[in-house]
Amino acid sequence: MSYYIGVDLGGTNIKAGIVDLDAGKVVAAHSTPTLAREGHDAVMARMADLIVNSLTAHRLAKTAIGAVGVTAPGVLDLEKGTTLFLPNLPGTWPNVPLRDTIHARTGLPVFMLNDVRAITYGEWKFGAGRGVETMACFAVGTGIGGGLVINGKLHLGIGGTAGELGHQTIDFNGPECGCGNRGCVEVYASGPAIAAMGVKAVIQGRTTILGEMVGYDLNKITPELICEAARKGDAESIEIYNFAGMCLGVAVANVLVSVGPRKVVIAGGVAAAGDLLLAPLRRTIHERVTVMPADQVEVVQARLGSKAGVMGVALWAAENLRKAGS
Amino acid sequence: MSYYIGVDLGGTNIKAGIVDLDAGKVVAAHSTPTLAREGHDAVMARMADLIVNSLTAHRLAKTAIGAVGVTAPGVLDLEKGTTLFLPNLPGTWPNVPLRDTIHARTGLPVFMLNDVRAITYGEWKFGAGRGVETMACFAVGTGIGGGLVINGKLHLGIGGTAGELGHQTIDFNGPECGCGNRGCVEVYASGPAIAAMGVKAVIQGRTTILGEMVGYDLNKITPELICEAARKGDAESIEIYNFAGMCLGVAVANVLVSVGPRKVVIAGGVAAAGDLLLAPLRRTIHERVTVMPADQVEVVQARLGSKAGVMGVALWAAENLRKAGS
Repeated sequence: MSYYIGVDLGGTNIKAGIVDLDAGKVVAAHSTPTLAREGHDAVMARMADLIVNSLTAHRLAKTAIGAVGVTAPGVLDLEKGTTLFLPNLPGTWPNVPLRDTIHARTGLPVFMLNDVRAITYGEWKFGAGRGVETMACFAVGTGIGGGLVINGKLHLGIGGTAGELGHQTIDFNGPECGCGNRGCVEVYASGPAIAAMGVKAVIQGRTTILGEMVGYDLNKITPELICEAARKGDAESIEIYNFAGMCLGVAVANVLVSVGPRKVVIAGGVAAAGDLLLAPLRRTIHERVTVMPADQVEVVQARLGSKAGVMGVALWAAENLRKAGS
Repeated sequence: MSYYIGVDLGGTNIKAGIVDLDAGKVVAAHSTPTLAREGHDAVMARMADLIVNSLTAHRLAKTAIGAVGVTAPGVLDLEKGTTLFLPNLPGTWPNVPLRDTIHARTGLPVFMLNDVRAITYGEWKFGAGRGVETMACFAVGTGIGGGLVINGKLHLGIGGTAGELGHQTIDFNGPECGCGNRGCVEVYASGPAIAAMGVKAVIQGRTTILGEMVGYDLNKITPELICEAARKGDAESIEIYNFAGMCLGVAVANVLVSVGPRKVVIAGGVAAAGDLLLAPLRRTIHERVTVMPADQVEVVQARLGSKAGVMGVALWAAENLRKAGS
């Protein structure tokens, strides 16, 4: 039996987990600050150190490890093992040989995957998506990422970029998105979009407790705060989540009519709002989708939290190692 | 070696083809009016007669036929072999046992498939989509239908309804669609939508030759006529196709970011406009899609014309017969 290591490179922290895939468990978790401003070489050295130190801490020899899976938040070239564009890291990491660097520094086989595809795969195998053949995942946080599992396989599409469900256009005349398009669902329902609606409500002098809650320091209005206000009955805050849930529902509806998944998993920080977000989302689907049996599609919250990515990419590494060996 | 028969039930005509799948050819094609107002029993009898008469005409015994594939334009229950909702046929055919009726009347094994999924499958195997692993098809006519082939398999999704690419929302505040949703791409870029833009241009007194071309009988303004006017240099008509192509491009872009196909095939009557429609479509993709390598996606016109559905459903029947036997 081998363990697999999943490493999740984030803008703030690098997380690593030693994963027992048969048991579906992270047996040990470690984390270290990314310190991304020090540049990619320093960050990659820190990632490798985290892997090696995890092994030492648990008295595991390298031979006990099958392979390492590494996720990064952005566009990757899975064949070359390089990062192409990590928008949230300083320098955006164009053509950084992430796979070979981690391999050289650890001596372990390394496989890469986009962070949200890893979350998708983890939730499908071990979390909220268990047991279905076809599943879509939306991860709603600073941006909106996504992923698809189709017929029991993580769907990658050309260049491994399929699953960018947050960049579906839901209004072709809509506001500009960071990606260069207009009217992506990310513009309406991401964390920053939700926070901006809260700020706007205060600035426009609408009846809401949001301003008071932050002592009128509007930078402190976050999706979590708006969620809290909504739970206290603040109508304006409820309306903000209704709108975000509706917009997300339109994007989910597009995936339903196109791909027909059995389950849709909503992950990411904003999903913590639970039914505040999911109820209007589900309502939107049932109102809008008539060309497929939307009542047979379950829309659920993710279950694995921050472990999903580490577990998903460990699984991905195990499968790719097997393929490479056969 | 066996032949397979593909039968395509349309609102106006029933078409049947005897298909040589190894050669990728329709070896004999027959057609008869649907006369849909006579009701489903009469229509199904006519479909069965068309099959039997095709065999007689070509002196083929039933034993020379592997199976029959039948397409219908609408929502089907593939497991039960029934039609659920054929919006363009009188009575809409709720719960009509199409498969068993054709089987009882012909003695041949029968398999069903939605008409546009059959076109998708036919174009993928024998037409414009040959050789790619993952392909999307949009069939633009009275409505906009679609289909997906993913990793070399026709993708059906739950209930066999995946691929309704024309009912993707591209403006969540948009006009009502026949399906009950708002702002589906079908509302903007289907044949009737294109014709309506032509009628509107004349009524609003814009500078266009469209009115003159039909002697101001506005019912005669069709997508084909607007296409003809555009080719004569009518700026208003060119603009109509630019708009329809842009809208279709937004829906295609949504499929690119979600599914990442290598090829997108545009089929259906409206696709006959060729680059008049495809040039703005391609431009839209290149302007809007940055999160996947859109320059690696080919957008092409369908190649098989009205044979695509017959060939696709014959192939579908052959594969299902093989599965049933194994």
